[in-house]
Amino acid sequence: MFEFAEVGQQIDKETYKTQLPELREALLEAQLDLFQTARFPVLILIGGIDGAGKGETVNKLNEWMDPRHIGTYAFDEQPSNEELLRPAMWRYWRAMPPKGQISIYFGSWYRALLLRHTRGEISDTELMQHMDGIVRFERMLVDEGVLLLKFWLHLSKDLQKERIEKLESSPKTRWRVTSEEKKGLKHYDDFKRAACMSLQATSLVEAPWTIVEGFDANYRNLTVGLHILKAMRERLDHPEKVPREFSVSPLLKAIDHVNPLERLDLGLKLDNKTYDTKLEQLQGKLNKLTRRPGFRKRGLICVFEGVDAAGKGGAIRRITQAIDSRIYRIIPISAPTDEELAQPYLWRFWRRIPPRGKIAIFDRSWYGRVLVERIEGFCKEYDWMRAYGEINDFEAQLVKQGYLVAKFWLQITPEEQLQRFEQRQNTPYKRFKITDEDWRNRDKWDNYQAAAHDMVDRTSTEIAPWTLVEANDKNHARIKILKTLCEMIEKSIQAA
Amino acid sequence: MFEFAEVGQQIDKETYKTQLPELREALLEAQLDLFQTARFPVLILIGGIDGAGKGETVNKLNEWMDPRHIGTYAFDEQPSNEELLRPAMWRYWRAMPPKGQISIYFGSWYRALLLRHTRGEISDTELMQHMDGIVRFERMLVDEGVLLLKFWLHLSKDLQKERIEKLESSPKTRWRVTSEEKKGLKHYDDFKRAACMSLQATSLVEAPWTIVEGFDANYRNLTVGLHILKAMRERLDHPEKVPREFSVSPLLKAIDHVNPLERLDLGLKLDNKTYDTKLEQLQGKLNKLTRRPGFRKRGLICVFEGVDAAGKGGAIRRITQAIDSRIYRIIPISAPTDEELAQPYLWRFWRRIPPRGKIAIFDRSWYGRVLVERIEGFCKEYDWMRAYGEINDFEAQLVKQGYLVAKFWLQITPEEQLQRFEQRQNTPYKRFKITDEDWRNRDKWDNYQAAAHDMVDRTSTEIAPWTLVEANDKNHARIKILKTLCEMIEKSIQAA
Repeated sequence: MFEFAEVGQQIDKETYKTQLPELREALLEAQLDLFQTARFPVLILIGGIDGAGKGETVNKLNEWMDPRHIGTYAFDEQPSNEELLRPAMWRYWRAMPPKGQISIYFGSWYRALLLRHTRGEISDTELMQHMDGIVRFERMLVDEGVLLLKFWLHLSKDLQKERIEKLESSPKTRWRVTSEEKKGLKHYDDFKRAACMSLQATSLVEAPWTIVEGFDANYRNLTVGLHILKAMRERLDHPEKVPREFSVSPLLKAIDHVNPLERLDLGLKLDNKTYDTKLEQLQGKLNKLTRRPGFRKRGLICVFEGVDAAGKGGAIRRITQAIDSRIYRIIPISAPTDEELAQPYLWRFWRRIPPRGKIAIFDRSWYGRVLVERIEGFCKEYDWMRAYGEINDFEAQLVKQGYLVAKFWLQITPEEQLQRFEQRQNTPYKRFKITDEDWRNRDKWDNYQAAAHDMVDRTSTEIAPWTLVEANDKNHARIKILKTLCEMIEKSIQAA
Repeated sequence: MFEFAEVGQQIDKETYKTQLPELREALLEAQLDLFQTARFPVLILIGGIDGAGKGETVNKLNEWMDPRHIGTYAFDEQPSNEELLRPAMWRYWRAMPPKGQISIYFGSWYRALLLRHTRGEISDTELMQHMDGIVRFERMLVDEGVLLLKFWLHLSKDLQKERIEKLESSPKTRWRVTSEEKKGLKHYDDFKRAACMSLQATSLVEAPWTIVEGFDANYRNLTVGLHILKAMRERLDHPEKVPREFSVSPLLKAIDHVNPLERLDLGLKLDNKTYDTKLEQLQGKLNKLTRRPGFRKRGLICVFEGVDAAGKGGAIRRITQAIDSRIYRIIPISAPTDEELAQPYLWRFWRRIPPRGKIAIFDRSWYGRVLVERIEGFCKEYDWMRAYGEINDFEAQLVKQGYLVAKFWLQITPEEQLQRFEQRQNTPYKRFKITDEDWRNRDKWDNYQAAAHDMVDRTSTEIAPWTLVEANDKNHARIKILKTLCEMIEKSIQAA
């Protein structure tokens, strides 16, 4: 893999001087087209061997282009404690470039893994499992329209040694050699081997690695610059090309024409007296559970979905009544803001992921992608089809990092919905809850049911299963939700 | 001040039960009106004596209203390291409610100061100085349209002791008594005295303190709830009332009709050879300065203002060329996003304040308020007039927390601007830089000059002075800027 990057590739000064002005002008032009059309973001990953000139190259890119529309992020540094309190990928999501902008990530999601492998903390198999996850993550970014460019700056072992010694020998450059780099020198072979495996596993058709020899600065910088130019130009000049647009195999409805969701026993009921007793008991239990030290090490993410008037809000209130208001946050999801529209779909949820020990309750959620967006045609079939897998990956990341993901689908009958709509219209302080849109959505009842069926079918995973809630009777629904939550938390604390 | 909050105020259960349903419904209704009209945000500060029931009251508020549109923040907790790396007020800005929403701040900007005073870390005078700053800050919030409600929950010394003992005696509630609270008991008198002084100093007409005795939960919760309801209702029902709309005394132009800005010697020039030598020398110096440990403890905020084509971008590039791209961020300021429009004016700048040790370069800035917004009538005279003081306060906070604030006004002649405009139109990769708006702005030349004059006049402070840059000659301008920056950093490092 690195054969051609250990041969001492270089270009002479003259060639560099001749080519540079043209490249700079073209890069600037491409960047401005990018900024003005704001059709897609550019994400540049810079990885590689220490001493191969990553920092210098990035500084050059900033110099050549307009640095006002470039964000440079050093992820080889230690995460902040706010980052440490959240899932590992959160720090990358918060730095994501909006459409029209460029972000450059040093190290990105590769470096920490490679170092952990080099230190013997994770095995080959574990490394490769991580790479599988990265492939799915990067494919999602590409599908979301991100132009993803990945550069690996390489140096042969001898050259790395030479370069570090040279930097160290001058008081002007000595500060640039960190102890980490000196350690890296020792583990060169291990690091190279891990990098080789990882780069091979993650070289996607849509986002291949470009390996660049770091020995000669002119060669290196020009190569990286030209690659970026070409990739940006290609994308800018061919807006009609969509990165991956497969023919999607359509989902089929159940052949007996009965949606299994409609088979739920919606006659389940709880009388008020039993409800009051159980409610008090379960709220007390939930309160205690959220104060247990074992819970504070985790975190809870609740998702509520269901048709209008299914009782999401009421159920959420029964949960929050039991919890200290300092540890939960309710996140109602409606239309995205313009800052959110300029980002990949999942960004708006990632920004709301709570730190560990806290609770986020999503009143509607990322499942909008496969519900309302699917039904209303806000996104293409290809987009909501791939969302099932992306959502499963997203939730798997959360669970892996210690979060509990509790998902509730509240099922009611159309008759019950109608009754609640009418009741809302007649109650002064509930009038706001009923809009023309609600009535329009009602007309698409069957579409919503079909979408909900597919959603549960494809995203009810072992680690983050859906709880189907018979919600025609509010008492029954609320108690079932509280009970499920308590059991989940209890189990997770015991398992820890 | 606390006389009426040590008398054991309470209400009987019957009264509570009778009044509550009506209050809840009215609160919910008010909150929904707030959300739907989204005209202003509500910020509720809850302070007080430990054990007076702050947490319980806030939980009740969340229960009574729709918690989906309430954000509850516990600022009595330790700041995160990302917060510690920024000016003290940053953590409050990032939690600020957008229009239509409610945020509840525990502790807020008062608690830490009161505790420091109680521990003897700051004197009475220092405490009062802080309170002066708070008054200006809160007045700004009020002027920005925030409905600011401040509650202080009080308990007499005996009752505090009694309450803490009671909590401690039961295993069910023991966890709620922190060691801090037990310490608080010892310093009751000091804390009460500091609170008394502080509350008096910060009881504004537009945002008075409401002192509520915390002894009886029903009395306390009902009182707080009723106050919130009344304040919200008043504001919702009288959209025509603006919190403070004074008659503004108009700014006068210089009586000799010569704008002092136009007296700058715009004939100042630097030949290319001298420029090249000085540029290299100053960039080298700047690079070294930004690597000094003394700099890493501070932080640098640069502001560039000037008419179109004054050379802001070029000057910024000469700075960034000298610095590692990992430590600076350029922030071009154009139209605000919709998330920014839903916040007080300074929010969009606060969210971009860099952590200590890093550099933020604002290409246009908060001074837009007194330049373009003033000239184009995007805000009222009262708003841009108060902005001078608000900006001075904002920058004073930054400087006080160790940041350097370097502000550059680039002055050119109208003839020079015309020439640059024409040149831009004839250069392919600069064409984007010239828009119809630029030509329109040019027609308002005199207005811009007058506004710039007033800006420099009113915001060039000792701690954050404006540097006026003669910018008809780009060489001269860039060198002057680099030189000024280097001197500022050097001086600050030496002073440290």
